[in-house]
Amino acid sequence: MAEPRSHLIYAYREDEARRILSSAMDGRILSVYFIGSTETSTIPGVSVAGATPELTLYTPAVDVEYLFYGKPLTINQIPVTPEGIPTPALITRAAIKSSNIPFIVVDTGSYMKPRIPHVTLPSKMVGGRIDLGEALPYDVARSLFEEGRALARVFTPLTELMILGESIPGGTTTALGILVGLGYDAWGMVSSASPSNPHVLKEKIVKEGLERMGGPSVDPFEAVARLGDPVHVSMAGFLAGALEGDASIILGGGTQMAAVLAIVKHIGISLRGRVMIGTTRWLIEDDSSDLTGLVEMIQPDVPVVAYDIDFSKSPYEGLRYYERGYVKEGVGAGGTSIAAATIKGLTHERLLNAIYEEYERLRGDGIEVDEEDRG
Amino acid sequence: MAEPRSHLIYAYREDEARRILSSAMDGRILSVYFIGSTETSTIPGVSVAGATPELTLYTPAVDVEYLFYGKPLTINQIPVTPEGIPTPALITRAAIKSSNIPFIVVDTGSYMKPRIPHVTLPSKMVGGRIDLGEALPYDVARSLFEEGRALARVFTPLTELMILGESIPGGTTTALGILVGLGYDAWGMVSSASPSNPHVLKEKIVKEGLERMGGPSVDPFEAVARLGDPVHVSMAGFLAGALEGDASIILGGGTQMAAVLAIVKHIGISLRGRVMIGTTRWLIEDDSSDLTGLVEMIQPDVPVVAYDIDFSKSPYEGLRYYERGYVKEGVGAGGTSIAAATIKGLTHERLLNAIYEEYERLRGDGIEVDEEDRG
Repeated sequence: MAEPRSHLIYAYREDEARRILSSAMDGRILSVYFIGSTETSTIPGVSVAGATPELTLYTPAVDVEYLFYGKPLTINQIPVTPEGIPTPALITRAAIKSSNIPFIVVDTGSYMKPRIPHVTLPSKMVGGRIDLGEALPYDVARSLFEEGRALARVFTPLTELMILGESIPGGTTTALGILVGLGYDAWGMVSSASPSNPHVLKEKIVKEGLERMGGPSVDPFEAVARLGDPVHVSMAGFLAGALEGDASIILGGGTQMAAVLAIVKHIGISLRGRVMIGTTRWLIEDDSSDLTGLVEMIQPDVPVVAYDIDFSKSPYEGLRYYERGYVKEGVGAGGTSIAAATIKGLTHERLLNAIYEEYERLRGDGIEVDEEDRG
Repeated sequence: MAEPRSHLIYAYREDEARRILSSAMDGRILSVYFIGSTETSTIPGVSVAGATPELTLYTPAVDVEYLFYGKPLTINQIPVTPEGIPTPALITRAAIKSSNIPFIVVDTGSYMKPRIPHVTLPSKMVGGRIDLGEALPYDVARSLFEEGRALARVFTPLTELMILGESIPGGTTTALGILVGLGYDAWGMVSSASPSNPHVLKEKIVKEGLERMGGPSVDPFEAVARLGDPVHVSMAGFLAGALEGDASIILGGGTQMAAVLAIVKHIGISLRGRVMIGTTRWLIEDDSSDLTGLVEMIQPDVPVVAYDIDFSKSPYEGLRYYERGYVKEGVGAGGTSIAAATIKGLTHERLLNAIYEEYERLRGDGIEVDEEDRG
């Protein structure tokens, strides 16, 4: 194995993480990005993964259109926060393009169909507001798991490493729902794309759903159907299918990955020492959430690695905002960067330059922070 | 390279074919099945790839549902001819299952969405009747090509060999349309799933379209838009994308593959000695069509290999009908069998047994030939 890069932070179970990354050396990589929507993201204050609550419904499709073609198609701007901070897909695209990692998108229930070649799960469905009603019919939750599992079986024989990422605004709230719905005391532990993590609002939403559900369940499909969304259960199914083969898996994301781990745990699937979480420095340094705490609670053998990215010296204000707690992670940004660095040998300097080039290319597309917000 | 199996028939350019198959030895394989519909198949007499002309619209989705799950979902019967002869997907499934070849389905414009995880091309569209109007808008033909090409770039780094198959009832008629639309004298050369190849009807349909078009074009997208369908142009795009990498490609099909070769030729894409046609004995022994003649006319360097399959000793009458000229090829049956035999070492006996087991399992699902047709 190549000497570990200085730009990785081994946040939890370093030896295990090194072993998993080492096992994929010289292997073939595929990134798989799962997109879906939950109407929960339209509740004002829940998600900043879109310029307005309504635009969060467009974010998943536009994120992956941008990843695929380098420009959005469904609307004419890449996803931004209300302040204009650009989507982490910017980092993902820079990592993918600079290291030639092939990727495919899986639509589990995106409000808009992405205008790129992509995989459709036949049971795909936009998730409902979990405070007002069910997220998904129980059968749909179960089918998405099975369809994700069947899909993974196609790719497992072709790869040594798969990176699983997601784009679902409101996803930390539904991840909290899944965790609490399975009986975990995860209150206050999930992350947010906002520097002011709206824990109180998230907890109010999840508690309303939990009350209607009549308390936690041991059945992960019940927890997903009542308090979840289409993405996490589909990723869990894909993970289950991938574990039938020999590939290693990086769950590319933050605290939402704990929900994926909880689903497979409650189905009784062994991770066989081949699964790690790959995320960003912003996520593990976030004081408002606790990824490693969640992992210790749910699947304590799973390592957590972060890519040590820092935009404080970026020439672009929109990126410097990441250092103030905006965005943090998403669209597999951290996990993809880790794979690009370790398996493909992408240097930190080249990755940073590629991110800056992407940003530069997109200027004028409205991703600059508004003047009045400049600090 | 392993000793060539006795159950391959090297029909054209044997040395080239052996070299291509040899280059993929010990490599990773992916099968890609393209589905789509053309309303041309609903013209009575054009297609027997369905129990009735209307049911031909369901055949592509049901073929791949059966491939994926071993049973149809959209309707409760696998595709059959009006006489009850089962789809060649039976052979494809037996070959895939017995040799663990992973596969994925690409919807280019199926009348019904298949109820399996599958790739959607965003420009997918059911083709129009080519005798009455255009097949596709010109921009759609062009976009399907580009989307197929972009999709191939995902899989090329992961594989040494890709098998491309198709399911599109009416596909030999639209293949004739594409060939004639590009100026080839292909009249009377395309195959049919019927023992009585309806050349007169096909030619009448294509001539009506050709007349409206004002004669042949050198632009393959024009030929596809006027006289084609969504499948062949998408396959051509995928082939073009695959040729950007290092994988070899088996075009799994009969005379329709000539249309795919014609499209890439007219776009100016070099096949780089890495493309062969893989088909069935029934197809190359068919007196009513001329696959190698078409290849000599269009891309004379492309080898043609057939899998030497024979159902005359089958215990099942529905399969023995294949020996009377029914069905012949489809859903990549021949090409998939060739890859399974050469690359995966699947013996002929095991393939035959797997086909019989599939047939046995499906009995009672209505695939038996009607009593009055038994000869």
